[in-house]
Amino acid sequence: MVEKNRSEALSSSQEKNHETPIAFTRGVPPTEAFPTEQLEECLQAALAGDATTIHQYSKTTGYGPLRNLLAEEYATTASEVIITNGSLVLQDLLAELLIPVGGTVLVEQPSYDRAINIFRRRGARVVGVPLEADGVSLDHLETAVRQLRPAFFYTVPDFQNPTGITTSLAKRQAIIEIAQKYGFWIIEDSPYRRLRYQGEELPSLYQLGKQQVILLSSFSKILSPGFRVGYAIAPQTITESLIKLSEDTYLSPVLLTQAAVFVYLQRNWLTPNIEHLKQLYRPRWQAMLQATSTHLPGAQVIRSEGGFFTSVTLSPEANVAHLVERALERGLSLTPGSAFFADPIDQQTLSETHFLRLPFCAITPEQIDEGVRRLAALL
Amino acid sequence: MVEKNRSEALSSSQEKNHETPIAFTRGVPPTEAFPTEQLEECLQAALAGDATTIHQYSKTTGYGPLRNLLAEEYATTASEVIITNGSLVLQDLLAELLIPVGGTVLVEQPSYDRAINIFRRRGARVVGVPLEADGVSLDHLETAVRQLRPAFFYTVPDFQNPTGITTSLAKRQAIIEIAQKYGFWIIEDSPYRRLRYQGEELPSLYQLGKQQVILLSSFSKILSPGFRVGYAIAPQTITESLIKLSEDTYLSPVLLTQAAVFVYLQRNWLTPNIEHLKQLYRPRWQAMLQATSTHLPGAQVIRSEGGFFTSVTLSPEANVAHLVERALERGLSLTPGSAFFADPIDQQTLSETHFLRLPFCAITPEQIDEGVRRLAALL
Repeated sequence: MVEKNRSEALSSSQEKNHETPIAFTRGVPPTEAFPTEQLEECLQAALAGDATTIHQYSKTTGYGPLRNLLAEEYATTASEVIITNGSLVLQDLLAELLIPVGGTVLVEQPSYDRAINIFRRRGARVVGVPLEADGVSLDHLETAVRQLRPAFFYTVPDFQNPTGITTSLAKRQAIIEIAQKYGFWIIEDSPYRRLRYQGEELPSLYQLGKQQVILLSSFSKILSPGFRVGYAIAPQTITESLIKLSEDTYLSPVLLTQAAVFVYLQRNWLTPNIEHLKQLYRPRWQAMLQATSTHLPGAQVIRSEGGFFTSVTLSPEANVAHLVERALERGLSLTPGSAFFADPIDQQTLSETHFLRLPFCAITPEQIDEGVRRLAALL
Repeated sequence: MVEKNRSEALSSSQEKNHETPIAFTRGVPPTEAFPTEQLEECLQAALAGDATTIHQYSKTTGYGPLRNLLAEEYATTASEVIITNGSLVLQDLLAELLIPVGGTVLVEQPSYDRAINIFRRRGARVVGVPLEADGVSLDHLETAVRQLRPAFFYTVPDFQNPTGITTSLAKRQAIIEIAQKYGFWIIEDSPYRRLRYQGEELPSLYQLGKQQVILLSSFSKILSPGFRVGYAIAPQTITESLIKLSEDTYLSPVLLTQAAVFVYLQRNWLTPNIEHLKQLYRPRWQAMLQATSTHLPGAQVIRSEGGFFTSVTLSPEANVAHLVERALERGLSLTPGSAFFADPIDQQTLSETHFLRLPFCAITPEQIDEGVRRLAALL
């Protein structure tokens, strides 16, 4: 009886809203993105081939054969590769390694909220450098570097989280030059890079200046997040320190999923899988660009060219008071924009109060259009 | 040609030593300890039953069904359980959570070297409390607690790493009382508990006083270390904080191996597997006790009753100068005893310079006897 009453209450509340829930929140792949049967085959092949290695404590470097393959992909040696349980933990270990007591790090403004949080937990002052439509403001970056002597600059140059912005080639080259001139590390976080729906791939910061760059990436967005296979490519002095720190923190990573990824790559299944993902995500990306342009006049819309997100800065006249709460009442989940903003170096080019990240991969074009309509009705 | 020369050089160096290598170093299970085929079956069953959950980002709590099973085993609720990639990382997060700036933690003297190192990396002063043959010295513990007001006391009460010592029931009760009286946490690290070769199981500290205790354990020593399935059982205020911190550090753990462990437990395969492991390890344990008693007269030998280790404190007259290096020349790998000693609270009851940890699970009785003979010849 209690159960019945509860479900009656629920459906009556839904009727009151007249709306099914739509989530513009986390950037996760949808269930239909996982090549489940292929992955099961690869897991079985990995176990059949190398069970003893997989069941034992291992080197903290990651699964040897996958390490070699990644070294090949990035045109470097295995000594410059470390693979572990997702790439986020490498940001934590890099923060421990590189941030001195009382040190400063620079991030784009806005930036990935979890990165900001990790750097702060490690005691850093995290300073945001304004992000423009073609990448970080170079003037602001150089000023910040001169004034603050940061340990590193954290950037997501391809289809940035949270904005969707891609850094132009000219700015990539300039960022490398500034890093060389002043001597700081660039952490290039690159999980979305291979999901481009439009335009031409640009060289990575790593390709442009590998002595200054620690590249992070993973198979979470192009294969399976649950596998937790992420990696860093960096000069050996960095990877050696990361290997030591990770051994001291968690002994060794799960090798089974790394071994399965190795088999997946060896069978040449990744490129077709990425093509499949692009076919799945492209209509959603188009729907989000279309809906934001159509339903949000006056908003500054970022026209991302790939990845999981686009974003908008709402018009200054928009009513943003309690927007997240009001949206939820209409069945629309939003992430508060403020989470993505560290302390600014200067005035903000993307206004904190009016900024919204809009992930599009895990919902249908129809849901996207309906969600943006609901948002527009609240402003 | 180069390869050939190298291998010639190697075999000539071995001939010179007249001895094949024997390792008294890391406490890892041997290859023959892994129930490889059963684990493969369980992985397949887990994927067949729950692939979508396993491939997605997950809750940082760990795999729900396994969390429920562990809650049942420990007679508590799932809200007091967190499962992640091995238990060591939970020590790191607990250190972040519980150690205030400039804070002190207490460990047994000697203690697990990786734990000491983790607490130091998080800024703690780590103070060792002398370990006696039946557990930590209660007088020293209470004195240290009164003087230093520690954030927590880290202990391995069953078959301790590195000594093999088991804390007596009376001392377990007294430790709980001291913790209640002065108000500090006990971190009970319990990976070896189910591998008892002799005597009766004692209640865990967790069972004696769960409000004061954070229990850590894993399936690394009783199933597969490579699976990296470790967990904490603790009051909800602690598990909730650990869940938040772990999400902020690595998003979510690998679920696949957790799901396979769940299937393994459901099929009631763990108890027989532990029986099998005991049959495998008991002769090795007996050989180590026998060899140390026979070949090391004058040494204080710890007669462990289970787990992976026993240990000795060599006689004061023993020649311990450069012992690790000299042993290596005779094909015997030893861990320097000093790694297990934090700053002492007082004089040491187990002398740092003469202490040796002796793992026995991954080598045969013959290797154990031969290794201890070699050791004896060096003293």
